[in-house]
Amino acid sequence: MLRFERELITEWRRLDLPAEAAIVLLAVSGGADSMSLLIAADELKKAKKLDLRLVAAHFNHGLRGEESDADEAFVREICSERKIELAVGHARSKPTSNVEQAARIERYEFLTRTAENLKASIVLTAHTIDDQAETFLLNLIRGSGLDGLSGMRPARNLSNGDDNLKLVRPLLRWAHRAHTEAYCHEIGIDFRSDTMNEDESFTRVRVRKILLPLLRDFNPKIVERLAETARLLCHEIGPAQEVAAEALKLADLKELSEPELGKLLRSWLAVNRGNLRQIELKHIDALRRLIHSRRSGKTVELPGGSNVVKHAGQLVFKKNNIEKEPPDN
Amino acid sequence: MLRFERELITEWRRLDLPAEAAIVLLAVSGGADSMSLLIAADELKKAKKLDLRLVAAHFNHGLRGEESDADEAFVREICSERKIELAVGHARSKPTSNVEQAARIERYEFLTRTAENLKASIVLTAHTIDDQAETFLLNLIRGSGLDGLSGMRPARNLSNGDDNLKLVRPLLRWAHRAHTEAYCHEIGIDFRSDTMNEDESFTRVRVRKILLPLLRDFNPKIVERLAETARLLCHEIGPAQEVAAEALKLADLKELSEPELGKLLRSWLAVNRGNLRQIELKHIDALRRLIHSRRSGKTVELPGGSNVVKHAGQLVFKKNNIEKEPPDN
Repeated sequence: MLRFERELITEWRRLDLPAEAAIVLLAVSGGADSMSLLIAADELKKAKKLDLRLVAAHFNHGLRGEESDADEAFVREICSERKIELAVGHARSKPTSNVEQAARIERYEFLTRTAENLKASIVLTAHTIDDQAETFLLNLIRGSGLDGLSGMRPARNLSNGDDNLKLVRPLLRWAHRAHTEAYCHEIGIDFRSDTMNEDESFTRVRVRKILLPLLRDFNPKIVERLAETARLLCHEIGPAQEVAAEALKLADLKELSEPELGKLLRSWLAVNRGNLRQIELKHIDALRRLIHSRRSGKTVELPGGSNVVKHAGQLVFKKNNIEKEPPDN
Repeated sequence: MLRFERELITEWRRLDLPAEAAIVLLAVSGGADSMSLLIAADELKKAKKLDLRLVAAHFNHGLRGEESDADEAFVREICSERKIELAVGHARSKPTSNVEQAARIERYEFLTRTAENLKASIVLTAHTIDDQAETFLLNLIRGSGLDGLSGMRPARNLSNGDDNLKLVRPLLRWAHRAHTEAYCHEIGIDFRSDTMNEDESFTRVRVRKILLPLLRDFNPKIVERLAETARLLCHEIGPAQEVAAEALKLADLKELSEPELGKLLRSWLAVNRGNLRQIELKHIDALRRLIHSRRSGKTVELPGGSNVVKHAGQLVFKKNNIEKEPPDN
């Protein structure tokens, strides 16, 4: 067994994932991260360390024309060669704005739908510790508050309230992008490079290509330090408070301390919206002002189109029905 | 009243500092930050907004030869012109290693001793929101854990257990270095520039001159975002747990969850050492391993020379008597 495979099976056990009799869907873009995860999992099956039904899932966003189709053809070819089951989805239409987020929503819808059809219990994605560090920095830069900084979890429920389908990231805690590429070379598997990963008009690309190398000059272990800080925060903040989705009484809110109120508001928004994506400090601060202002009937608009309205001594959450919130990455 | 003075008196009230009948010691290096605080406080006295005994305190570290003496002469001249009381201290010997930290310890010893002699109740330092952001980044880079990231407090007790002497930073929450310089220009007061602030062999200087400008390209409000994140963390982590300094029973520690144990160990170290300066994740992780290892009699060495020893089913803190821990900045 190669070292990358040993590390993967070790993490598989640490995450308490089933080693047999389960159906596992694995999101594969064709890049080094997802190819390394796919091939290593397949190798672990061949080595009888895993005895699972492993299904690859590729979503063709069609955003990069021929390049997207070549990615799909590449994934089809590898899966066919290695006799790995494959599900392929295609985007229905090109998004016109917020391309990255719209693509993410569509991809996760496809993964969830496919997992449900297959009766899979686990969806694997190939996010690495580098992705975690980049996410931490992106959220730090935009001031997303502590929830954003606590980063991606190695495992969480994929759909709200459905305990039977888990999203698991078995590379998140240990694998660097350099490891996934090295493993692909070692085992002789090609991978595709996404030209969007080189496009510096994306903030994430500038974080990866400019900010992280500078931080590495300060501390060669910066990626581990950032990921560890995210993990500490995740522990320290702890699981979200149990908060009902109902309207909140202003009189109760005014009795809370500043940090208690911030925590409650974030949990309440999370329950009502499904997540805290794009919620920044300024939104929480706007809610604080709404609570303490004397005027009634004012509204705070939230990212994605939902609103919080002050009405009859209460804060009321108004969901935008066409809003669809994506998972955390 | 100039805007800087208005902002200062507003923060003075927010911090609940006395406006009269108090003795206040103000640390003055001669740089723009401390000169702006000194002059603005003096102007507030002239405008009858404050009625306090204001004493400037300058410590000559003698680290930069003639430049240090010129700083002292400059502070003496301004204080004499404006009839501000001044206490001056001189370093006894040049530190040979860890110059920055040794200088900080000596300076705070001087400030504490002078404040006690004067029966002052408050020591003011001129740390700005830029200092807070730099401190946050320095601690993030070195992986200091959440305590380090929660940054400097606007007010805290200066000496352990002595509630009568407070260290207060009235510029920390709002003043940028650009504001302090602009105020000095506006009111026609010169200030000194410390050549060490330009020396890129200091990590802090590289954070200020290279990292922060790059982060500002991502978000022009990055300093505010980092300071706000520090403030959120300070609230979220909350005041340290009430932990006794006594030895901890291993059997009790083993029953705690991972985050509970981490929190307890940090509080216990803080009580025993006086602070958590230089304590990094790796030290907490070493203590976790010490707790769970089967061998007895092992030791974890901490920065500054103290140790934690496993002995007779307990964790025991052994203080290095010559260790002196400086305040947090």
